[in-house]
Amino acid sequence: MLDKNYIPADDARQLLLDRLAGITRRVERLPLEKAFDRVLAEDIIAPEDLPGFARSTVDGYAVRSRDTFGARDTSPAYLNLAPEILMGSVPAFALRPGEAAPIPTGGMLPEGADAVVMFEHCQKSSESLVEILHAVAPAENVVQKDEDVKAGQSVLVSGSRLRPQDVGALAGLGIASVAVFAQPVVAIVSTGDEVVPLGSPCGPAQVRDINSFTLRGLIAHHGGIPVWEGICRDEYETIRSTVAEALQKADLVLIVGGTSAGVRDMSASVIDSLGEPGVLFHGVALKPGKPLIGGMIGPKPVLGLPGHPAAVVGTFESLVRPVLACLCGLRSVAITSRAVTARITKSVASVAGREDHIRVRLEDLDGELCAIPVLGKSGLITTLVRADGIVKIPAPKLGLDAGESVAVHLFS
Amino acid sequence: MLDKNYIPADDARQLLLDRLAGITRRVERLPLEKAFDRVLAEDIIAPEDLPGFARSTVDGYAVRSRDTFGARDTSPAYLNLAPEILMGSVPAFALRPGEAAPIPTGGMLPEGADAVVMFEHCQKSSESLVEILHAVAPAENVVQKDEDVKAGQSVLVSGSRLRPQDVGALAGLGIASVAVFAQPVVAIVSTGDEVVPLGSPCGPAQVRDINSFTLRGLIAHHGGIPVWEGICRDEYETIRSTVAEALQKADLVLIVGGTSAGVRDMSASVIDSLGEPGVLFHGVALKPGKPLIGGMIGPKPVLGLPGHPAAVVGTFESLVRPVLACLCGLRSVAITSRAVTARITKSVASVAGREDHIRVRLEDLDGELCAIPVLGKSGLITTLVRADGIVKIPAPKLGLDAGESVAVHLFS
Repeated sequence: MLDKNYIPADDARQLLLDRLAGITRRVERLPLEKAFDRVLAEDIIAPEDLPGFARSTVDGYAVRSRDTFGARDTSPAYLNLAPEILMGSVPAFALRPGEAAPIPTGGMLPEGADAVVMFEHCQKSSESLVEILHAVAPAENVVQKDEDVKAGQSVLVSGSRLRPQDVGALAGLGIASVAVFAQPVVAIVSTGDEVVPLGSPCGPAQVRDINSFTLRGLIAHHGGIPVWEGICRDEYETIRSTVAEALQKADLVLIVGGTSAGVRDMSASVIDSLGEPGVLFHGVALKPGKPLIGGMIGPKPVLGLPGHPAAVVGTFESLVRPVLACLCGLRSVAITSRAVTARITKSVASVAGREDHIRVRLEDLDGELCAIPVLGKSGLITTLVRADGIVKIPAPKLGLDAGESVAVHLFS
Repeated sequence: MLDKNYIPADDARQLLLDRLAGITRRVERLPLEKAFDRVLAEDIIAPEDLPGFARSTVDGYAVRSRDTFGARDTSPAYLNLAPEILMGSVPAFALRPGEAAPIPTGGMLPEGADAVVMFEHCQKSSESLVEILHAVAPAENVVQKDEDVKAGQSVLVSGSRLRPQDVGALAGLGIASVAVFAQPVVAIVSTGDEVVPLGSPCGPAQVRDINSFTLRGLIAHHGGIPVWEGICRDEYETIRSTVAEALQKADLVLIVGGTSAGVRDMSASVIDSLGEPGVLFHGVALKPGKPLIGGMIGPKPVLGLPGHPAAVVGTFESLVRPVLACLCGLRSVAITSRAVTARITKSVASVAGREDHIRVRLEDLDGELCAIPVLGKSGLITTLVRADGIVKIPAPKLGLDAGESVAVHLFS
């Protein structure tokens, strides 16, 4: 049974992302060693060549390659020993025809040399003579000046997340600081007359707050700074003033809880009361996660997430994560979402028109990666603890057949 | 050409992991909100039931299910309206036969009730009478007391990394602090006469330090605390005293650089000079990364990584990451390594007996995920910047054929 008022998950996501298309983001400049995982707010153009000189990639003899042509074990080329090249030093001589200079890996080629013969392919026949047993082509065993990066070349573009090797490349180019987007602040407003905070006694009919913890972890994993606003009772004025205050400091506000219809309507009214455009959608064709509310107050998204723990994780993946990625300034949510292919071990039914998220555990069965559905209501946090990821059944599909190959989106 | 002295990458890894089997790790107790991503150092047994009472999963009427048996649109069951159940409150009454009590999602079932009928399947026929249009089975629309977790049940085991939902589950059980393993400290000792630190002028024949930046990011991503010891010149005594000092504070020491054979031998001598067992292997059948050195000083691994930027990332993935995971206390390196399946667009040759790592860029070509080899010498950092991950060619394999399906291990 699918309510016709529920909009497809893809449409809900797009509705929010379209509204965010023109927002401005705060930018800060950070020293490189603090820039890991941050999102670049500038294009990086190489200020210099990398490397700045031709380097050997092996331990050997720097040579003029033509002097080695035709050399082989049975008919070596004989070259005169030139001075040794020291690591980190500019050779004080030019290599003349018929000469070979000992050079370490990473050493700078002397003027005149255009290739390096590995030590293994040489032998010293006297104090001043080297036998070359193996011909080398021009540029063999050499990294050319600017072969890695040429001055003026684009290295990284604005909107890239700085991975370890990206930071390494910036260091290699002598770039000591970068402009990055400020991390978006994400406020979590927990609601529920029955919810008590960790550390307080939990009476009968009450439950402890789970979702603010799960969300804090998810937000931090995806580049946001989580700020918890505490637990509101299910009262319009309390929720309204808390959300209004959260909007002052946060770039994104999540109202969590309100699993009952009356309270959901209250969250929607709160969003509508705080500014334009207000609620954009209320109810998404997504399971778990149907009672999702999406709205904006000016440039700031305010999302109402259902209170079931599995629904919180599901709606985070479907809606909050893309919104957060956009607020972080990420150029694109990578095509390489962290999914592995596995064989599903049980048939699972779904409803046409609704995107279903099936929690699964991964197990290696007879050398094949298998996805075992973790059954249980979406209110149960332990279904998520036992799961390694989720399988998405797209809206048009009616279910999955046992043995089918599926993409498992791994939890972070 | 494969040197017979090079041991297989799998053997090198196992040699170190076997030595680490019995080590003791420091344990610290953290408040839950600081425990994200940390590794549990204790088994968690549920101290209480979750939930502590039977809860409704819908907005509706709490009923005795047998009172609804046979009810349908055309022949409803008529039940007397009982008092409304409030969220977070213990119902002050027991439900008598023939009664229905309004209940919100998450509300506590009153004594006597065993199921909930959704509001959509009911209508009020008078102030005191409710029509039930749909029969419910016992337990329908109810989460039972202890259905999520039963007191005394195992929830998480020592050695698990605490994901957002795991922390959520602990919060749900009222567990406010946990014992976790201290994060291992990983010292990075950079070496090289030609290497200058970021911020210093880089003369001709010199290169800037890239690897300490890449490694700091990789170490932090995988749960370690990176500490950079600066750049040593290629002098035995300097490297020896720096490594000796690093061993005082670190759980793992990485000596980086020394791409030339002479300097590699120096690193190996340093490791052997500092204690038992010293060097365990010198040279691994891995490309890039062959000149890898593995040793232990007492319980602390000391690894010598080659200085080529791509070799640093390759050896990190193959050897440092599993060692670091072990030092972190992780029970097992997950079978869910973050790999995606793609079709390789070019044939790539490999040498039998050597594990080859091919850097690839992922691209969606005509709806199919393709892995495009990123060519370039392993000394080039930009080959890593342009890549999304690596494809491993296992030691026995002779290469990859264009069009073959491959697993791409994504960079973090």
